[in-house]
Amino acid sequence: MKIAVLGTGGGARAHIAKLAEHGHEVHVGTRDPQGTLARTEPDMMGNPPFGQWLAGHPGIELHTFADAAAAGELVINGIDGHNAVAALSAVEAELAGKTLIDYAVPYIYDPDIEHPWPTPWGVNPVLDPCDSDSLGEQIQRALPATKVVKAFVTQEQATVVDPRAIGGGDHTMFVAGQDADAKRQVTDLLTSYGWTDVLDLGGIVASRGMEMYAHMHGAIGIALGFGTHFGIKVVR
Amino acid sequence: MKIAVLGTGGGARAHIAKLAEHGHEVHVGTRDPQGTLARTEPDMMGNPPFGQWLAGHPGIELHTFADAAAAGELVINGIDGHNAVAALSAVEAELAGKTLIDYAVPYIYDPDIEHPWPTPWGVNPVLDPCDSDSLGEQIQRALPATKVVKAFVTQEQATVVDPRAIGGGDHTMFVAGQDADAKRQVTDLLTSYGWTDVLDLGGIVASRGMEMYAHMHGAIGIALGFGTHFGIKVVR
Repeated sequence: MKIAVLGTGGGARAHIAKLAEHGHEVHVGTRDPQGTLARTEPDMMGNPPFGQWLAGHPGIELHTFADAAAAGELVINGIDGHNAVAALSAVEAELAGKTLIDYAVPYIYDPDIEHPWPTPWGVNPVLDPCDSDSLGEQIQRALPATKVVKAFVTQEQATVVDPRAIGGGDHTMFVAGQDADAKRQVTDLLTSYGWTDVLDLGGIVASRGMEMYAHMHGAIGIALGFGTHFGIKVVR
Repeated sequence: MKIAVLGTGGGARAHIAKLAEHGHEVHVGTRDPQGTLARTEPDMMGNPPFGQWLAGHPGIELHTFADAAAAGELVINGIDGHNAVAALSAVEAELAGKTLIDYAVPYIYDPDIEHPWPTPWGVNPVLDPCDSDSLGEQIQRALPATKVVKAFVTQEQATVVDPRAIGGGDHTMFVAGQDADAKRQVTDLLTSYGWTDVLDLGGIVASRGMEMYAHMHGAIGIALGFGTHFGIKVVR
């Protein structure tokens, strides 16, 4: 299958590598492909420069957001939450009619807000939107012809693509969105990654809870110690 | 042990009944004991009148908030989130030096906010405070001499007091607060309820994530179907 991954961060790389391993034709999109390839410094999360990473993953090409979105039959949004709506709106035509998976958490890093605990990046960020709206809903409103599915958002993307790395894989992944067929398509992708418990939380409004869970995720990660991978299982 | 439970709602009743069953001396606090006992209608959540419930639980007395707080060595706050800071501040002296467990979610029911999905009580509420503050932190700031522990907040209180009702009890309860001894005291109480996996999320700031998880909890509950009890297990 032709799958587009928009973004070149650590989360996007996990999907790109796994999808290529599974034989998919992966089209990676970035704002400025030349600029991305020219970078020689690690990104803000400490990932090595994308050009260096790409050299170790032959057969994957880097395109503009528009070219990657046009090529993909299914699209994964790995653009950071703060920039996602603007970047995706600019390629609205290329995304029309397609399923778009969004896993972003709309963190903002406001220097005027006191951040009471340290995170790996030094601050405890807040969310915008939050509570009465969500990034998932914003993207769906901005792209009415696209079938937006919020998914992957409740844990690290490295273990989203490798669920069996945690507790033998017996934990829960959540999906939400307005289109049942699109959610089935995403569930099929998750099944190919190894997921056995995918819970449909209903309409895109459930993005609120999925994004707001980021604070619990962070607190659990700090409690277990950084580097400990974990997931959550809905125990019935 | 002498334990005060402030509040008479469904969550408070679950703790009152279980603590009495375990042989604790339970002191229940309410704003206006005579008014509470005089009520003949179900409360806003559909619980039967407290006087009727109390008649089936002999040996438990109803006091004012101040008298119950004064009598308890350990105090459980079951006052709804919207009123908790004011009601607890009024009994600050009675709570000084004690451990106060808070499980409230600071939902507000604002008729001017559009609530996009139905809940058992008809609206999808929003949280206040949220994201950059929490009710747990507000209570701790209002009562600096009290050791506030946020706990019990991530699931129904009926299953907090009976964890083995779900998946044989193999799920996770969270505690957060500034005082390690107070968190140990709460963990001991949870162990007496049957909990085997209690995760300390750190300082009271972790109340943010615990309270904001309410939206995920609601979405999971809707997905599983109302009446399905569930918990979440942190799978390492």
